[in-house]
Amino acid sequence: MKNIASLVRPAVRKMAGYTPGQQPAPGSQVIKLNTNENPYPPSPAAVRALEQALADGDRLRLYPPPTSSSLRQAAADCYGLRAEQVLAGNGSDELLRIVLDTFVDPGEKVGFLEPSYSLYPVLIQLRGAAAVPCPFDWRQPEQMPDLEGIKLFFLTSPNAPYGIAFSNKFIKELAARLDGILVVDEAYADFAAGNALELLAACPNLIITRTFSKSYALAALRIGLAFASPEIIGEMDKARDSYNLDYLAQTAAAAALGDQEYLQATLARIRETREFFQRELQHMGFTVCPSATNFLFCWPPAGLSAAGLYRFLADRQILVRYFAAPPLDRGLRISIGTREQMATLLTVINQFIAEEDKPDGYR
Amino acid sequence: MKNIASLVRPAVRKMAGYTPGQQPAPGSQVIKLNTNENPYPPSPAAVRALEQALADGDRLRLYPPPTSSSLRQAAADCYGLRAEQVLAGNGSDELLRIVLDTFVDPGEKVGFLEPSYSLYPVLIQLRGAAAVPCPFDWRQPEQMPDLEGIKLFFLTSPNAPYGIAFSNKFIKELAARLDGILVVDEAYADFAAGNALELLAACPNLIITRTFSKSYALAALRIGLAFASPEIIGEMDKARDSYNLDYLAQTAAAAALGDQEYLQATLARIRETREFFQRELQHMGFTVCPSATNFLFCWPPAGLSAAGLYRFLADRQILVRYFAAPPLDRGLRISIGTREQMATLLTVINQFIAEEDKPDGYR
Repeated sequence: MKNIASLVRPAVRKMAGYTPGQQPAPGSQVIKLNTNENPYPPSPAAVRALEQALADGDRLRLYPPPTSSSLRQAAADCYGLRAEQVLAGNGSDELLRIVLDTFVDPGEKVGFLEPSYSLYPVLIQLRGAAAVPCPFDWRQPEQMPDLEGIKLFFLTSPNAPYGIAFSNKFIKELAARLDGILVVDEAYADFAAGNALELLAACPNLIITRTFSKSYALAALRIGLAFASPEIIGEMDKARDSYNLDYLAQTAAAAALGDQEYLQATLARIRETREFFQRELQHMGFTVCPSATNFLFCWPPAGLSAAGLYRFLADRQILVRYFAAPPLDRGLRISIGTREQMATLLTVINQFIAEEDKPDGYR
Repeated sequence: MKNIASLVRPAVRKMAGYTPGQQPAPGSQVIKLNTNENPYPPSPAAVRALEQALADGDRLRLYPPPTSSSLRQAAADCYGLRAEQVLAGNGSDELLRIVLDTFVDPGEKVGFLEPSYSLYPVLIQLRGAAAVPCPFDWRQPEQMPDLEGIKLFFLTSPNAPYGIAFSNKFIKELAARLDGILVVDEAYADFAAGNALELLAACPNLIITRTFSKSYALAALRIGLAFASPEIIGEMDKARDSYNLDYLAQTAAAAALGDQEYLQATLARIRETREFFQRELQHMGFTVCPSATNFLFCWPPAGLSAAGLYRFLADRQILVRYFAAPPLDRGLRISIGTREQMATLLTVINQFIAEEDKPDGYR
């Protein structure tokens, strides 16, 4: 028999094994600002709906609604769409894979801004397609990328890891110029002033994805939504697993959508903390990228090392995100936590600056 | 711009849209024997673990452990394996897709018995691979299929929809003859007298998949496991979504694995009901396929129509599974419910036989 390695697809064999992000041990006292989770719990309505589902002794043994029908209707009602324009997924990660499985054949070109969500090239490689990274300069965010021969383009809006939002004018022009599918990944759009939903009617090649992991504080449950034309949703529907979203996730998501008041209150608190934290960082000499998300990308003042600050914080039980590869290696991405957490972080950053001013600063 | 249909992959465009199985409305009094769910609830330990997870106000807002580490260790302990030999998935359906994404390039041949699980050809088509159905005769189940040029083979053991188990001698020979990967889909193995786990050490090309939707009564939560060599699991791990299994599913599955006493008690009741139901059907003149699962495939006595019986039952709020395409169109697949449900079903079948004996029988 052949050896196993020779049976693995060359595209998979070449891939690096997945390295999970740093997850503190249960019960640890870490301030976790590294994966853009919401510092506040999900809507009490979502938790109540989950408790009720558990109380129904019969519900867990039965398969979930295969098409997530109630959730899709709830999303359609919430966003002014028809249920046929909505697809539910096991996190928006699954929906990103489904768009590739639906539209991209091996060898076709898939574009995305670099830097943006690091999962895109992984999914593209898995699909056997050609990844086309387009350099992204945060100071000139709305430069039109080269779209020649691109079958599908992923635009993270607002961008991660910089946090910058794109205008609908730019997105509309990108969709019009693209002879293919435009996926606008709106994982962070709830934290922004606007979003691209209104473009769905005018742009037949547009797909918008959302996640419940950030604004809705349901990262544990893996829930994503895609919005597009009924035709696109109908094709994507064929490429998903038959029962792709579990019953508790469907239940929690529908309940969370129904509690927009809680969502808006949470968003307001996070935006307020973001503005406070940005001002404080700027006072301390940091360069801060304008953010429409629940995180900030920032660069320490001249002479201070981002990598050094990252380690200084980690040693003090504060986790932020440091990307070691250029062009991100001189900055840090910091999730917006509670006001108290950000105040603690600022205190520790001040300690770092003070230590660095000494002759043998922190290494 | 091109029209959307021309942007869809030809393989997907050709696929029929997914037709979900019949799901009774919530609160209806249907006896549901059509999708092989467990008639008993999951282990109370699993429900308690879910309640505790909800009580932790912080847990839902955080991402789940990306590698399902605790669940994989719990499964390894339960089945006498190492954690590196276990992968957890969003239902075994996801794991079946992952094996294709890991090992099968477009155009390569994937074999499976026909009839068996109807999802295989769908996943193979989506992968762009060539589906090779191998005719399966339930009266001669261990005929070796033609494996020439087959890159990967799906064997459902016990078989669905017939319920017949394959011997480990046959599975071992199949693995040895196959110049590729053998996936033994053990969705129903807990209901059988044996399973293929002991073959893992001897067969380097063997992957075994399991589901929590049948024996563990957790269909709502979408949990599957794959067992194979650390090398195979390592490669499959690259092809899954980073956070592919939600926290509540991980939690419930680990707790359910820890309560083998409850599992065995439930399995014993279902097996006992299966034997009772089989005897009664045989007394009524049905041909019954020997089953190692939680369902029976059976053929009504000569002169009685399976389709007619299916409709007669449906009209009386009893759902069983009827496959309209040959060779299955003369029989019915009936899930094993509670003893009371099966007694009710037998009474209604007797009514059907009595009606059919009249000059203008049920149509």
